[in-house]
Amino acid sequence: MSKLQVNGERLWHTIMETARFGRTEKGGVCRLTLSDADRQVRDWLVRECRAAGCDVSIDEMGTIFARRSGKDNTLLPIAIGSHLDTQPSGGKFDGIAGVLSGLEVLRTLNEAGYTTTAPLELIDWTNEEGSRFQPPMLASGVFAGVFERDFAYASEDRDGKKFGAELARIGYRGERRCPDHKLGAYFELHIEQGPVLEKEGILIGAVTGMQGQKWYEITVTGQDAHAGTTPMPARRDAMVACARMVMAVQAIALDHSPLAVATVGHVVVRPNSRNVVPGSVFFTVDLRHPDEKVLLQIDQELRKMVAATARDSDVKAKLVNNWNVAPMEFNADCINRVRNAAKKLGYRHRDIISGAGHDAVYIARVVPTGMIFVPCENGISHNELENTRPEYLAAGANVLLNTVISYDQK
Amino acid sequence: MSKLQVNGERLWHTIMETARFGRTEKGGVCRLTLSDADRQVRDWLVRECRAAGCDVSIDEMGTIFARRSGKDNTLLPIAIGSHLDTQPSGGKFDGIAGVLSGLEVLRTLNEAGYTTTAPLELIDWTNEEGSRFQPPMLASGVFAGVFERDFAYASEDRDGKKFGAELARIGYRGERRCPDHKLGAYFELHIEQGPVLEKEGILIGAVTGMQGQKWYEITVTGQDAHAGTTPMPARRDAMVACARMVMAVQAIALDHSPLAVATVGHVVVRPNSRNVVPGSVFFTVDLRHPDEKVLLQIDQELRKMVAATARDSDVKAKLVNNWNVAPMEFNADCINRVRNAAKKLGYRHRDIISGAGHDAVYIARVVPTGMIFVPCENGISHNELENTRPEYLAAGANVLLNTVISYDQK
Repeated sequence: MSKLQVNGERLWHTIMETARFGRTEKGGVCRLTLSDADRQVRDWLVRECRAAGCDVSIDEMGTIFARRSGKDNTLLPIAIGSHLDTQPSGGKFDGIAGVLSGLEVLRTLNEAGYTTTAPLELIDWTNEEGSRFQPPMLASGVFAGVFERDFAYASEDRDGKKFGAELARIGYRGERRCPDHKLGAYFELHIEQGPVLEKEGILIGAVTGMQGQKWYEITVTGQDAHAGTTPMPARRDAMVACARMVMAVQAIALDHSPLAVATVGHVVVRPNSRNVVPGSVFFTVDLRHPDEKVLLQIDQELRKMVAATARDSDVKAKLVNNWNVAPMEFNADCINRVRNAAKKLGYRHRDIISGAGHDAVYIARVVPTGMIFVPCENGISHNELENTRPEYLAAGANVLLNTVISYDQK
Repeated sequence: MSKLQVNGERLWHTIMETARFGRTEKGGVCRLTLSDADRQVRDWLVRECRAAGCDVSIDEMGTIFARRSGKDNTLLPIAIGSHLDTQPSGGKFDGIAGVLSGLEVLRTLNEAGYTTTAPLELIDWTNEEGSRFQPPMLASGVFAGVFERDFAYASEDRDGKKFGAELARIGYRGERRCPDHKLGAYFELHIEQGPVLEKEGILIGAVTGMQGQKWYEITVTGQDAHAGTTPMPARRDAMVACARMVMAVQAIALDHSPLAVATVGHVVVRPNSRNVVPGSVFFTVDLRHPDEKVLLQIDQELRKMVAATARDSDVKAKLVNNWNVAPMEFNADCINRVRNAAKKLGYRHRDIISGAGHDAVYIARVVPTGMIFVPCENGISHNELENTRPEYLAAGANVLLNTVISYDQK
């Protein structure tokens, strides 16, 4: 166990420094992928990494690799990374905290004159958020072989601008092929984006894996009718049927407490006029559970409920399951090293499942991977109000530092 | 009781003839107020009324008055009317059936060489629908003193075009002041726009009045949250709270069967993203009942329910009652004459409450007024599928004819 400790104050200050690139009036960050703000923060990161003695290179997906030499540079690098892009009304921590904790690790090692055996690599993956260009986790996905480079290049934003062209425009269409090298291990620190750690007073989440996820699109069709002239028993009200289903979706998730979550987030009512009984409602269900078996059981319950509710409500319902992600588990050794680092540092910690996607989820397909969660305020993320505390981030960065050193010494 | 009978085939043919002005691909009609299609159908009506021997004049609201002389032209005219404008995806009968039944009455009297004692007036009121220019029932409202002419002139469509200017553009800004004369009585035939008559196998509805109506805007505010990382018990899901309220609104209306109707027709979810727990939902409630006392009782139940549901769901709810129409009753003598005409003609008939607004509702404030409903198919209206049958319309026009003659002979 090393005695090294990061400089928490410097880490917090560094995060506040980068928050100026894309700063919003309400104190959040709008730093869409490949925007000018993204270019500015990338230029800043490249400068800082060079100042920290790293070799910086860019691959054809715009991913930034900052390499710090080890004693034996023939070994595969131990990588630390996350992303610097944000949601349109995002916060100062989602993604950024992971990259800048990595930078803090490098700075701490430099100050201590500590050279790892393997080289280290700090990575900023392009387009994790998927707000401007879909799908999300695009560069880590190409690195892990999930997507083709040219599929990514062809992705268009709302204005018809292509990912590939915008990459060139901001000067970050690099020459390295993606992927052109292997990683020995990959560690990512992230704010939890949920309320669990803060509520339980726990500093560190050792992330064991990611929930499986199923998306559904449900269209309920009844009959438009005049709100004044149609007696209640004569109605085939699609909104009333949708309301029943929304409540039943919640009930199904609660039946599988505490790990199941189910959300009706997107609802479109037609014709959506205050004096017309709705003839149709489109809505989505986002369903997540870490256990594939339970997920499939909930899937069956959902389908039965939708069919039965439609029958009872004298409407038709069409259910389409349009997206599936299988549950995944991180590398057991990596998880263990995160747990042990937290334990040795004396931090309260627990295992936790990630409810959200992260670059680490794709990288885990090809590299032994672990993740570290730190608490955030009220579980709020993807929001300008997103917040955490200097001491949480310092603790997380210390766990990251010690996990990397432990992995390097194995 | 006269032996006169309208020509049902001619009436049906006339309606099909006018349906070409603004015809839609699906067989409906898009004849927005003061559009070119509205001008065309007006030109057609003016020609036909002149051909039927009427004096035609236009008032400053664009309302068309076609006057057929009586034996004593110092008497106040007995008027028949409705409107020729439609919803954007409207049908061939809503409004039109009333104007053209009136035209059929005039043609029938002409053929029989029957001269009424009082003069008759066939009226096409401008902008009943309120789709292009708000509010609805605009010209009948100005005629009845509900609105000022200049308020109507200033009403703008989505493109910023003003009612007054568009009236001039299509050549229907007439010279007669509105109002510049009184009516002795006013009768309006309309399709029911609901399913009651058809379902009960009844030909004629003698409309006794209109439901009172209350509109509400309810905003539920919880907390946006990540759909993957926020455990169910930690959520303050505005959509789940809205769903509870939608079901409770329905339950309240059913508690006041059979006359109460309540509709949640307009729903806006924010941020309306499939992987975000909704932080806020805006929705409307349209509440109607013919008895003011019951309407007020339901109002109280609605307010209590919204407050209690918000409390139980850990969200905030703001309720605004933004529109109220008191219940109204048509003139007892006019209602009776409609009932008697149906009875003498041997038509199955019943009293019925109008669930919708009509020009007759405003005219009733200043003129003894009655309305006749005929069945429509499946209660569908404000829809290209809107349909009725030639025999229903013929029956309605016969009741209209005999009601007018009865009123003239009183």
